[in-house]
Amino acid sequence: MNIRLYNAKILTMESEEILEGEIWIQNERILYVGNGNDTEDVYNKLKLQSIIWDREIDCEGNILMPGFKNAHTHSAMTVLRSYADDMPLQDWLNKQIFPVEAKMDGEMIYHLTKLAILEYLTSGITSIFDMYLTPETIADACVDMGMRCVQVGGVNNFSQSVELVEEMYQKLNGKNPLLSYVIGFHAEYTCSKELLQKIAGLARKYKAPVYAHISETASEVEECQKRYGMTPPVFLDSLGMFQYGGGGYHCVHMTEADMDVFKRRNLNVVTNPGSNTKLASGIAPISEYLKRGINVAIGTDGPSSNNCLDMFREMFLVTGLAKLREKDASAVNAFEVLKMATVNGAKAMNLLDADVLAEGKLADIIMIDLHQPNMQPIHNIQKNIVYSGSKQNVKMTMIHGRILYENGKFADSIDTDAIYAKANEIKEKIC
Amino acid sequence: MNIRLYNAKILTMESEEILEGEIWIQNERILYVGNGNDTEDVYNKLKLQSIIWDREIDCEGNILMPGFKNAHTHSAMTVLRSYADDMPLQDWLNKQIFPVEAKMDGEMIYHLTKLAILEYLTSGITSIFDMYLTPETIADACVDMGMRCVQVGGVNNFSQSVELVEEMYQKLNGKNPLLSYVIGFHAEYTCSKELLQKIAGLARKYKAPVYAHISETASEVEECQKRYGMTPPVFLDSLGMFQYGGGGYHCVHMTEADMDVFKRRNLNVVTNPGSNTKLASGIAPISEYLKRGINVAIGTDGPSSNNCLDMFREMFLVTGLAKLREKDASAVNAFEVLKMATVNGAKAMNLLDADVLAEGKLADIIMIDLHQPNMQPIHNIQKNIVYSGSKQNVKMTMIHGRILYENGKFADSIDTDAIYAKANEIKEKIC
Repeated sequence: MNIRLYNAKILTMESEEILEGEIWIQNERILYVGNGNDTEDVYNKLKLQSIIWDREIDCEGNILMPGFKNAHTHSAMTVLRSYADDMPLQDWLNKQIFPVEAKMDGEMIYHLTKLAILEYLTSGITSIFDMYLTPETIADACVDMGMRCVQVGGVNNFSQSVELVEEMYQKLNGKNPLLSYVIGFHAEYTCSKELLQKIAGLARKYKAPVYAHISETASEVEECQKRYGMTPPVFLDSLGMFQYGGGGYHCVHMTEADMDVFKRRNLNVVTNPGSNTKLASGIAPISEYLKRGINVAIGTDGPSSNNCLDMFREMFLVTGLAKLREKDASAVNAFEVLKMATVNGAKAMNLLDADVLAEGKLADIIMIDLHQPNMQPIHNIQKNIVYSGSKQNVKMTMIHGRILYENGKFADSIDTDAIYAKANEIKEKIC
Repeated sequence: MNIRLYNAKILTMESEEILEGEIWIQNERILYVGNGNDTEDVYNKLKLQSIIWDREIDCEGNILMPGFKNAHTHSAMTVLRSYADDMPLQDWLNKQIFPVEAKMDGEMIYHLTKLAILEYLTSGITSIFDMYLTPETIADACVDMGMRCVQVGGVNNFSQSVELVEEMYQKLNGKNPLLSYVIGFHAEYTCSKELLQKIAGLARKYKAPVYAHISETASEVEECQKRYGMTPPVFLDSLGMFQYGGGGYHCVHMTEADMDVFKRRNLNVVTNPGSNTKLASGIAPISEYLKRGINVAIGTDGPSSNNCLDMFREMFLVTGLAKLREKDASAVNAFEVLKMATVNGAKAMNLLDADVLAEGKLADIIMIDLHQPNMQPIHNIQKNIVYSGSKQNVKMTMIHGRILYENGKFADSIDTDAIYAKANEIKEKIC
């Protein structure tokens, strides 16, 4: 497909600048980004005098920008949305979530992941960093829907082995251009020391980064201290876990020494403010991470602890909660947040080919509707998006050159009613 | 107009219960709410055998509920959205906001209020509690757009006199069924003691409640302590301000004694978590208010300190921030929040005729779209709305029996492009 998006304001995310112009897409990649007056090179490169466009879309002065990277989620937990709420993390996990998860099978997870993908599309999310059971059916759901997905291993004592993670690592990387897979485990508190050592060994074998939930709650940190006399980041690092980098999801309760580990090992922080708020886990020290040059990305976490998959809510919370924590209204400005939701996410997920809007990059692009009352008047578009934006402003979501959501409608290939019916059927069966 | 809304799930907000049925509307009032099998009484009362419907709308199983009450806002500040951000309240007010406001006239405020009303409609907000300059042009904007509006006086040392408030009190109450006006002042820190005494006198003259910004920031409380040796609520009460009730906007930094004043005087708290977050003002002690039986309503505050007018964001923040403040994930449950956004708001705004969905009440009704991925599957609709809802779910907004927003489109009488153009023109002129 050749698609031309013209009459646009373009926030490439290479800088704060907003360009007036157009974007050309050929199949899955961006062919041209510019003001439309310097396109000769493109024709020369293609050895063409003109391009036959499958679609030319008048963007009506709206914003084109890179799609959001949801750098931490458990998509299939859609089935648990509004099932168990208003309780702290440990009770929520042990009493409500784990018993239901024990009843899930791969087919269910396939359908429930599809439901999450619908919501991602409405929120301008073009890539997800997903940790859950049955990676192969998650991969199928993403490929069938057209979602870009980095999966991460979720090794733990009960339901996911190191062997499975190694198998998936070999099987899913290179299987489809939308898919990749990285090594990971659930959390320190759900893995024995022996298991963690095995994971560290796997990471060394493949010279690969490792990701996990890290220091999400105060009690997680306390218990690790009791068990090993160390905080989770220091303990995990002592096992040689992060020789090739990786990152932590949540990272709410972190000491100076923890941040030193993150800095030294070049680890990524993925913050999940919606989940941390709803589970009363606390406020992550985002300004501290930024001060140290630690890469911070943003995730929604699963829909059971949030309960939605909305990068606009998360973006507002990242800066809002930082302001509250620091008692400083200037903490973490809007453009910094936009970077977290796009380029920093791409870095954390090793999607460097899909980070900014530039020639040769993968065409993961969203259109933000400025012709909505919450975007008017226009003093500063970046601030409008972060402080005032909502799903209502997502006018188009394109992944890998394919438009999957446009003007409130999903692509013809997507049957929303069937997906909703399946999710409710599964809910009846297992909840 | 006679409108029949059928095939609906109805959350009347008289209880947590959800009824399957229909709502009939005749002109501005609700004629019937029920399952549709017991409508004979209605016909008998009307002495009719059938009703000729102007419209019959199939709600497709979606939710009908009372519209949201935005119990604190400064609508015309739309022009300052994303103009000044990332700075604390006092600097923001004195250096950025007040100088621009000094250049505003009534006509500008008319147009800028209309822009805010567009956004309210997209967020299911059917009544606003608005404090700003030039009440008469705000009233005109609301009547022209069809928005229900309670205005509150904003007396202060610089730009609004007690005399104006008395004049508006007489002029705007009873002028139009969409309008009412209550006595109020900006805040303790922008009024001299003499002025505050005059306002208290006015309240006694009319046996009327009084509303103001109260204890929004820590420095406001400190300064009041320095000036008068008392916190704002205690000081204001000592002037006889609240003999006939009223309420406070924000109420972030409150002592036990302050809460006692609120309880004793039956004052309403209007919380504004989006604004308090963005300006780093702090987290209001909502659970404390609820424990004492103080009525808590929700406001967006103006779009300059938020920067959007979105009751879904506010609802999530009310419960989310309470959970963080209390370190308790069970703090302030979803239905409690829905009450704040509807019936409690109506109580605070003295709109008792527009609080719940019941026969004889004013028809201020919204439809929440459950056929969106963020509302699926359905375990608990109230939780879905509070924890996962967004503007995207507002399928219809009806005020005073008129449908003003439906399926993403505004009523034909509303010209959005003209409103956007005006707002940008005014922005160019005064910012």
